[in-house]
Amino acid sequence: MRLRVDLLPHGSYPDTVLVVDVLRATTTASVYLERGAESLLLTSSPERALELRGEGVLLGGERGGLPIPGFDFGNSPIEADSQNFTGKVVVMNTTNGTGAAHVAGKSGKHVFLASLRNAHAAARRARAIAVEEIAIACAGTDGRVGLEDVYTAGVLCEYLMAMSSVTIDDGARIALMVRRNTPDPLEALSSSTHGIALDRLGLGEDVRYSAQPSTSTLVPVLAEGQDVEGALRFVK
Amino acid sequence: MRLRVDLLPHGSYPDTVLVVDVLRATTTASVYLERGAESLLLTSSPERALELRGEGVLLGGERGGLPIPGFDFGNSPIEADSQNFTGKVVVMNTTNGTGAAHVAGKSGKHVFLASLRNAHAAARRARAIAVEEIAIACAGTDGRVGLEDVYTAGVLCEYLMAMSSVTIDDGARIALMVRRNTPDPLEALSSSTHGIALDRLGLGEDVRYSAQPSTSTLVPVLAEGQDVEGALRFVK
Repeated sequence: MRLRVDLLPHGSYPDTVLVVDVLRATTTASVYLERGAESLLLTSSPERALELRGEGVLLGGERGGLPIPGFDFGNSPIEADSQNFTGKVVVMNTTNGTGAAHVAGKSGKHVFLASLRNAHAAARRARAIAVEEIAIACAGTDGRVGLEDVYTAGVLCEYLMAMSSVTIDDGARIALMVRRNTPDPLEALSSSTHGIALDRLGLGEDVRYSAQPSTSTLVPVLAEGQDVEGALRFVK
Repeated sequence: MRLRVDLLPHGSYPDTVLVVDVLRATTTASVYLERGAESLLLTSSPERALELRGEGVLLGGERGGLPIPGFDFGNSPIEADSQNFTGKVVVMNTTNGTGAAHVAGKSGKHVFLASLRNAHAAARRARAIAVEEIAIACAGTDGRVGLEDVYTAGVLCEYLMAMSSVTIDDGARIALMVRRNTPDPLEALSSSTHGIALDRLGLGEDVRYSAQPSTSTLVPVLAEGQDVEGALRFVK
């Protein structure tokens, strides 16, 4: 088994991909499903999200860390955790995470949304289905590498390497070094440029919530053949 | 002063850029100038390099680590070190390094070719001329992050941070972690995917040659306004 880490989303992906945007899209996505949402629709643009509004459909997302006008929710896992989404479809659009999922979804078949909270479960799901290669796609922030995503990729690599023998690329080597440099996940997320920015916006609690490794077993997975135009559908 | 590390070449650069392709283009480029070359012309394609052949002009470059048919030299610092290039112009085209220089040269004004061998001198030159920001552009290998370049960027960051107070981005944080994880430069370069590939091609001596930090003070710099079409001119 080969294990590859893209520190930013890359052009082409193998069958099995773990998409990571730990602050906060892939963390929040899991919480929507934990709190009862039937499915998630990750759109390619905020405009497409607004078009999908309808009965039983709620909109969540952010730009620059803040809620998008006309959306029902921001991109906050704590906000999501306080609500009940039973039977709802949540349409998501965020600055980095939903775009990374679309890049991965172009060629990937088994696409999972991974975060620190579901890291062990996500690694297990990917390992169970992958044949030759697992790719981890870090979303980054505004086209730049994000320490928080590379750190999370390092945690995923540790789990995957403990599950079976894998050959790793330089991206995985770098992610493992970043992970091993900072044992405390909260320290890693808080010291990232994006973590600092969220704290300044008064969203430090979201950073702390996102920094709890393997406290959830729910892994959003791309529902094949169930996309709607301009959106990828993820289910639990 | 801001310090930014791009783990792969990015779209737009500030005035001052250090381009890193330690295995082997930026290492070899310095050696050509040390061995007397008057200037280097880094072309955007091998075809353009062949067109520039002429009196007093030699061609050096590689594809897949091997010399390009019709070129005079490969991309080997050891081969370059054994020759005398006094008064010659060396036209270079390589898989990753010359392309990274062209990306940096599009918006960068003070563009330096940095390697481990000239790391301290390159950091000093960049620090002396930069006003607000220094960017380090890692060339990578075939569009993928290269551990060897990120490691070298980490060494450059250490020097730059010792010279004055700088604010760093997540790319620089990651490069510093990679550097600190592996104190021995030869171990870092040899364990990279590209270092392993060169060793398999029988070019392990080039890896060892490239892994000698700050043994040279020569830093190739972009000669402003002296480009020829399809090529950037670098001088010492």
